[in-house]
Amino acid sequence: MPQQPRRVLITTSPFGEVNPTALEMLRTSRVECVMNPLGRRLREEEVAGLIGGHPAVIAGTEPLTDRVFAAGSALRLIARVGIGVDNVDLVAARRRNIAVTYTPDAPAPAVAELTIGLMLDLLRGISAADRQVRDGRWHRVMGRRLANSIVGVIGCGRIGRRVVRHLQGGFPDVRILANDIAPDLACADLSSVEWVDKQRIYEEADVITLHVPLTPLTDRLIGHRELACMKSDVLLVNASRGNIIVERDLVSALRARQIGGAAVDVFEKEPYTGELAALDNCVLTSHMGSMTRDCRWQMELEATREVIRFFDGEPLQNIVPDSVERLVEARS
Amino acid sequence: MPQQPRRVLITTSPFGEVNPTALEMLRTSRVECVMNPLGRRLREEEVAGLIGGHPAVIAGTEPLTDRVFAAGSALRLIARVGIGVDNVDLVAARRRNIAVTYTPDAPAPAVAELTIGLMLDLLRGISAADRQVRDGRWHRVMGRRLANSIVGVIGCGRIGRRVVRHLQGGFPDVRILANDIAPDLACADLSSVEWVDKQRIYEEADVITLHVPLTPLTDRLIGHRELACMKSDVLLVNASRGNIIVERDLVSALRARQIGGAAVDVFEKEPYTGELAALDNCVLTSHMGSMTRDCRWQMELEATREVIRFFDGEPLQNIVPDSVERLVEARS
Repeated sequence: MPQQPRRVLITTSPFGEVNPTALEMLRTSRVECVMNPLGRRLREEEVAGLIGGHPAVIAGTEPLTDRVFAAGSALRLIARVGIGVDNVDLVAARRRNIAVTYTPDAPAPAVAELTIGLMLDLLRGISAADRQVRDGRWHRVMGRRLANSIVGVIGCGRIGRRVVRHLQGGFPDVRILANDIAPDLACADLSSVEWVDKQRIYEEADVITLHVPLTPLTDRLIGHRELACMKSDVLLVNASRGNIIVERDLVSALRARQIGGAAVDVFEKEPYTGELAALDNCVLTSHMGSMTRDCRWQMELEATREVIRFFDGEPLQNIVPDSVERLVEARS
Repeated sequence: MPQQPRRVLITTSPFGEVNPTALEMLRTSRVECVMNPLGRRLREEEVAGLIGGHPAVIAGTEPLTDRVFAAGSALRLIARVGIGVDNVDLVAARRRNIAVTYTPDAPAPAVAELTIGLMLDLLRGISAADRQVRDGRWHRVMGRRLANSIVGVIGCGRIGRRVVRHLQGGFPDVRILANDIAPDLACADLSSVEWVDKQRIYEEADVITLHVPLTPLTDRLIGHRELACMKSDVLLVNASRGNIIVERDLVSALRARQIGGAAVDVFEKEPYTGELAALDNCVLTSHMGSMTRDCRWQMELEATREVIRFFDGEPLQNIVPDSVERLVEARS
């Protein structure tokens, strides 16, 4: 390790704009930075051209493929700024002995707050009213209160449990039905939620929010059959991954007014240009769950700390777990 | 009292639709109901035509003027479903010995929840993103988190203190600057807020929300001068009364990007058709603070209970206070 040049290629962009602390930390630790010179998401050949003899990359969502790795034979660490690693060839990285870290904790506070905002938006028709007023229509929407709703939380990991805490602390009368693949772990620090199976959430919740990772178990989790079990006025929030809801089935259910509404931040294909955009009983946002200044900054800090640990020969703290790698293999 | 016919005219519409309990209570108490036959807000002459010998009215926002009172010489009680009494000639009512009650508590939970929803909408750009996605534009808005914002709450009465509790319980790191005309009263059950003057709120808050009644002291409270003191990225929420912000000044400030954004539920003139509807840095809703099923039902119940108390010769519980009446005199 000590023989390696202390140099990191920062491909993600922007970096250090919200707050320059991460860049200062690298300087203080005598790690030289080479910034993405194009200021946008790089293409595969551009990363390959920049990689040179850098032992480490602070990465965005650009393709980090075997071809890139072949061009950068000194590469030993990819530190992703963010939680998704679908742009990284994890199998090739393992074969070439390149460690891959990510920042799974940092986005959670921002995603959880957006989720509460989307729930209140649906319950009160905020975006719908905004569209109507701008359209010259004045219709006082009769809504529902969050505090006396039954909220179903599917997935109680980093984000889901934050959603539960916002609800329990801020809206004390709310009743929460929770589901998790590992309820024993999730149970430990979540009190006063009712642990139930997904089917009961589909049937009983007034508001359903999804906070599961995309895995073979959750891919297309909510489709026609599940939507058909739900209350006719249920409100569905998805700020997790697009593929967890079958988009075509959601469009059908909303169009037929089979459910009350949906708030959708993530789509099967992004940027989104599909049929939901023509429906009035949904709220559409642009995959911005993690997009707050503080969380973006935290993501940059965490990735930077991994790079400094790497150069200082200390153990990495957030290596992408095998379970994520197995998912990639299963899907390829 | 016992000689009076137990008959109430219900001018507000809808009534009993969310839940028929209020109508059942009247039946059980042997109070005969005459419903608004037109199913919409009545005009002055229509109320005058219907008033007849009814001793009591369960009222909406239709004009209850001296002319109406003259047509209904038996009238002794107006029970408003709601908090605003600007449609009632309080001076004439007092002169004619007509009691006027209102339901000041019932709307508070709904208004407070809408306020939190509007804050999160502004902080994350939810409605703005919704408009963009529907417009075929994909721009991931960089937002801010509520939990690490400084929120200024102007007015800590029934609604403002609920807003404080939602914030403190649900978003524990939030810092709250609070202002009230009677901070000693408000202080008693609100801990961990910093009581400051309005000027400090204008200068220091990231989010400012207004929960004051419309009085001569608050009429045009926020105008050009106050907007000029605020942070350049401040977010302003108004779910109180339109006249508290000088609308023309707000339009100028938003247009010049002098402030970050505004969520406006109440307007100087409603239905609203003004210039805000053309701006992208605001969220506009249609005076729907109290519009949730549970709060609407509660408002109907409270008005109904006053009517039953009246016929049973019991003391009325929510007579419109003199301070409100003095305001009407001051403005006429």
